[in-house]
Amino acid sequence: MQLGTVIGNVWATRKEDNLRGLKFLIVQPELPDGTSTETPYIAIDRIGAGFGDKVMVTKGSAASKIEPNLSIPIDAIIIGIIDSVDVEGDNCG
Amino acid sequence: MQLGTVIGNVWATRKEDNLRGLKFLIVQPELPDGTSTETPYIAIDRIGAGFGDKVMVTKGSAASKIEPNLSIPIDAIIIGIIDSVDVEGDNCG
Amino acid sequence: MQLGTVIGNVWATRKEDNLRGLKFLIVQPELPDGTSTETPYIAIDRIGAGFGDKVMVTKGSAASKIEPNLSIPIDAIIIGIIDSVDVEGDNCG
Amino acid sequence: MQLGTVIGNVWATRKEDNLRGLKFLIVQPELPDGTSTETPYIAIDRIGAGFGDKVMVTKGSAASKIEPNLSIPIDAIIIGIIDSVDVEGDNCG
Amino acid sequence: MQLGTVIGNVWATRKEDNLRGLKFLIVQPELPDGTSTETPYIAIDRIGAGFGDKVMVTKGSAASKIEPNLSIPIDAIIIGIIDSVDVEGDNCG
Repeated sequence: MQLGTVIGNVWATRKEDNLRGLKFLIVQPELPDGTSTETPYIAIDRIGAGFGDKVMVTKGSAASKIEPNLSIPIDAIIIGIIDSVDVEGDNCG
Repeated sequence: MQLGTVIGNVWATRKEDNLRGLKFLIVQPELPDGTSTETPYIAIDRIGAGFGDKVMVTKGSAASKIEPNLSIPIDAIIIGIIDSVDVEGDNCG
Repeated sequence: MQLGTVIGNVWATRKEDNLRGLKFLIVQPELPDGTSTETPYIAIDRIGAGFGDKVMVTKGSAASKIEPNLSIPIDAIIIGIIDSVDVEGDNCG
Repeated sequence: MQLGTVIGNVWATRKEDNLRGLKFLIVQPELPDGTSTETPYIAIDRIGAGFGDKVMVTKGSAASKIEPNLSIPIDAIIIGIIDSVDVEGDNCG
Repeated sequence: MQLGTVIGNVWATRKEDNLRGLKFLIVQPELPDGTSTETPYIAIDRIGAGFGDKVMVTKGSAASKIEPNLSIPIDAIIIGIIDSVDVEGDNCG
């Protein structure tokens, strides 16, 4: 899973039918120390994340495994809102 | 999911059988502010996207999860046509 | 899906049992304008692609979704032989 | 699978329901010789890995294949704690 | 699929239960002409590959599709030992 911060959201009226009602947020991926890495992407949110929240995101087809037998075409979902990150070692001081 | 703009399309008469009737568009991936990132790729479209539309694309095997039990070899699908993108923060001004 | 050109093939007598009889081609990924991108990889072909053909490739586990309930360990398949690519915009001239 | 070292952990009280009880560790990906590569990410651990342990991580949707029919949205799991790595060749000394 | 050479192996006594008995090799990814690309990773081997063998590797969750209904958390498997690679074109001489 990837760490990141919610930096925006996306509105799309016309979309694939089985995506109605879902919330689409923009996430900026980050290192454990908060430095930005890579480019931002869109992730589904079902746990109430908002602007500025530090989150944990699952990417790829695993993102749709939120319910057994669910079949929705999403490739990123916010799975947790971070309370704290503890890091030892020389990479993320 | 990734933001992007539809910049073209692809015609292929000879293809895997279960892909007949699908529309293949070329999408240029973009940052929330519209800057191009990475190289363009081909995505399926079922919601009527056209040249110049800002879209949201699901990549990977999740792309085929548009119907339960559907089995088609596609790895990118346009899942929404973007109305608006709201971004706060220093990455996507 | 990714655009590319077939540039070679691979022979392997010893392989996983459920891959017998499949054809393994080497594909050079390309931009819509034909410029090479990334490194070449191996893709399965079932539609008769040959040296020099412009093709469309599905990557990742979606590649095995060519038949319902098929279970084969492949991560790239040629899904179409390109007739033409139409592109507008400043990235792919 | 990827080699890496456990360098930290993540706490998240609010998360997707089916992730309760799981342990989230931060892994720094490494080459066989111990050199860091890429940026750290979060992986589930069920085998008792701790700070400083050399581990083997499965990434992508395969990470949830730890039990038949399990449906959880995770994209990285520690599958082994490394005893030793033997390498020949010029890349990894 | 990716070309590569087996350059080592990994021993791990403590691992996820359903991975017991599997062989873990280190593969250096290569271009068709043998040049190294990217960083080495760990792949499962069931066909008897050894040090120095040129192999073909399937990556991602497709790697576990070696048996119907098999559920194991692996993301790379050696699917063939290469007899020969034939390439035309200017990328891989």
